[in-house]
Amino acid sequence: MGTTLYVCTTCKAGEPVPEGDLPPGLRLYAALAAKGAPEGIRIVGVECLSACNTGCAVSLTKPGAWSYVYGRLTLDDVPAILEGAGKYAATTDGIVPWRERPVVFRKQSMARIPPQMPFEEAAE
Amino acid sequence: MGTTLYVCTTCKAGEPVPEGDLPPGLRLYAALAAKGAPEGIRIVGVECLSACNTGCAVSLTKPGAWSYVYGRLTLDDVPAILEGAGKYAATTDGIVPWRERPVVFRKQSMARIPPQMPFEEAAE
Repeated sequence: MGTTLYVCTTCKAGEPVPEGDLPPGLRLYAALAAKGAPEGIRIVGVECLSACNTGCAVSLTKPGAWSYVYGRLTLDDVPAILEGAGKYAATTDGIVPWRERPVVFRKQSMARIPPQMPFEEAAE
Repeated sequence: MGTTLYVCTTCKAGEPVPEGDLPPGLRLYAALAAKGAPEGIRIVGVECLSACNTGCAVSLTKPGAWSYVYGRLTLDDVPAILEGAGKYAATTDGIVPWRERPVVFRKQSMARIPPQMPFEEAAE
């Protein structure tokens, strides 16, 4: 199952963006894309992950697995983000053992969402 | 498509929980469940949404739609959470027009994650 690493490209990381500068989120996206995604992962830029107070933000998601959102990321975190994405992709449920997670993933989780499960409609 | 409202039941909302007290997250879950979910929505308690610094937290998700995480919620927000969940459930893509969202959803979004999309494997 393919993993998607979403990167918020509009993120200003809580700071004004000087005229002519790229938003920090777009620079993070470009740096991740330049490094290249580990196998089985696609890197997708997305406009606003609604984590504006805790940007820059990325999200890791794949079908049948927990999804995660990480925040307060900088360009220095690019190698750790890709390492963590690779470990996430290698799981079936999205849960990487705590000690194996990059420090930035341990300390800067903004939220996670359970896998989408079959929905049994209540009797109507 | 069924909507799930996940509620973090372990959330301490950043405060110590006195001996014998229920965690704030569990109380929020109980209050939501007691009010009852709008049609087409199930309320599911979940251990830890990894939004511990911004609890109490809930998540709205459904297949093919954007998922949202909201934080810093209290028992006073129960009616707004259920109202917002109902509006979310009525959309196809999870995006409720901004002005129609409850104030607590406008101001306390922690993150959102795009819908899961088909994954075209890169050529290997």
